[in-house]
Amino acid sequence: MIFHVLTLFPEMIEQACRTSILGRALEAGSICLRTTNIRDFADNPNGRIDDYCYGGGAGLLMQPGPVCRAVEAACGEYEERPRVIYVTPQAEVFTQAKAEEFAACKNLVFLCGHYEGIDERALSRVVTDYVSIGDYVLTGGELPALVMIDAISRLVPGVLHNDASAEIESFHDNLLEYPQYTRPEVFEGERVPPILLSGHHANIERWRREESLRRTRERRPDLLKTAALTSMDRIFLDELSRREELKASGSGDEDIWKTEEEK
Amino acid sequence: MIFHVLTLFPEMIEQACRTSILGRALEAGSICLRTTNIRDFADNPNGRIDDYCYGGGAGLLMQPGPVCRAVEAACGEYEERPRVIYVTPQAEVFTQAKAEEFAACKNLVFLCGHYEGIDERALSRVVTDYVSIGDYVLTGGELPALVMIDAISRLVPGVLHNDASAEIESFHDNLLEYPQYTRPEVFEGERVPPILLSGHHANIERWRREESLRRTRERRPDLLKTAALTSMDRIFLDELSRREELKASGSGDEDIWKTEEEK
Repeated sequence: MIFHVLTLFPEMIEQACRTSILGRALEAGSICLRTTNIRDFADNPNGRIDDYCYGGGAGLLMQPGPVCRAVEAACGEYEERPRVIYVTPQAEVFTQAKAEEFAACKNLVFLCGHYEGIDERALSRVVTDYVSIGDYVLTGGELPALVMIDAISRLVPGVLHNDASAEIESFHDNLLEYPQYTRPEVFEGERVPPILLSGHHANIERWRREESLRRTRERRPDLLKTAALTSMDRIFLDELSRREELKASGSGDEDIWKTEEEK
Repeated sequence: MIFHVLTLFPEMIEQACRTSILGRALEAGSICLRTTNIRDFADNPNGRIDDYCYGGGAGLLMQPGPVCRAVEAACGEYEERPRVIYVTPQAEVFTQAKAEEFAACKNLVFLCGHYEGIDERALSRVVTDYVSIGDYVLTGGELPALVMIDAISRLVPGVLHNDASAEIESFHDNLLEYPQYTRPEVFEGERVPPILLSGHHANIERWRREESLRRTRERRPDLLKTAALTSMDRIFLDELSRREELKASGSGDEDIWKTEEEK
């Protein structure tokens, strides 16, 4: 897959992609990166591509001519016209499902706005997808484009060393990930949960699932509405609620919930 | 404000911050950036800070010792202990309101995970804020940290040239921004909306407000629930709904909604 980024700061995009997992994927050829400097398509010899907003207001806007010409030049490099993604807070929010959809594309063009944004007439002509990475305002479109390239790349075969990794991470079944532990077994007096050392795979899986459910319920209860839950999961969540109600009603006899070890 | 980033890739963070608005703010001293390489706090001389997960599973985890020592060393540089933000999909989602909250802090420490994440015992000891930039999975915490630094920085006084800019942009009153236009007045046969050339500021403001409302209703209707709407706004939105219903019921006489010019 080729990621083609249209920006005023191509060197920032290129440097950020040269690091770590993306950098290795670029070297191995699992993904490709191309950049186009929109300034090369300026209307005038001094390379200026921004101007004041009609109707007044603070800040500068990118002009329609340079943006449209840069997009056409980029799209012309591909046999099949790629989707052109404009990163803007004014759009549907990017999700893991959207990353999967984009990962199935052959090539993708990212258009990065700067200043106050881009003239509406350019956007309506060339953009196929308006995408926001979240409900916050940034100084430009470069970081959101990098975030999307990263999320999409790790779904491209060969980019992660173990394809299992892409699957078991957060948002599998729309649940948050369980806590994880590595060496040493005892850190500052705190032991790794004994079940993880038991070697009993079915029990470990069940414990991890329950921790995922508990954590999602605590930190992101909104996700449970669309999570893929089994009947076992529902029983566990109901029990968590029942325990809390009992505790809140001050029934006192909390010991009944403790394991033999805790008593 | 000092942003202190703990990472395995300090040069990537430093390069990305040297560009454009953040780069100028760093040069002007409106914000400061420090980085700590977590690898410098490895348990062993070869600099390895990751190991396999207890209980099995793909991928490697960052060990608790190096992470805790790196955080303590970073926090020790400040008189008042700063908040330590861990970027993870397993958390509350970052918003503009959260950016404003963080912008009021004196200094902030960002802890960037890599591989499968960080040992839970380290996180529970040092992290004060778990924040996600959105519901998608990335290869590491560096890009999310940069996104947050960018969103927070532009709220720090002096970072944007015109402080007005930070206010009028998207998410003012929780509405999307109106379309904007710059030179030329006619682009490929398409004129700038005449009202923007009228010089009548009250009408321009009203038109922009209505375009914001229309766009938010179309692209992000969820935002309208919490938007700060005036009674004029509500009348406009009700009228939009009534028009659509009329159109859907096929009443035919659509001309009644057209302006004299359009007929």
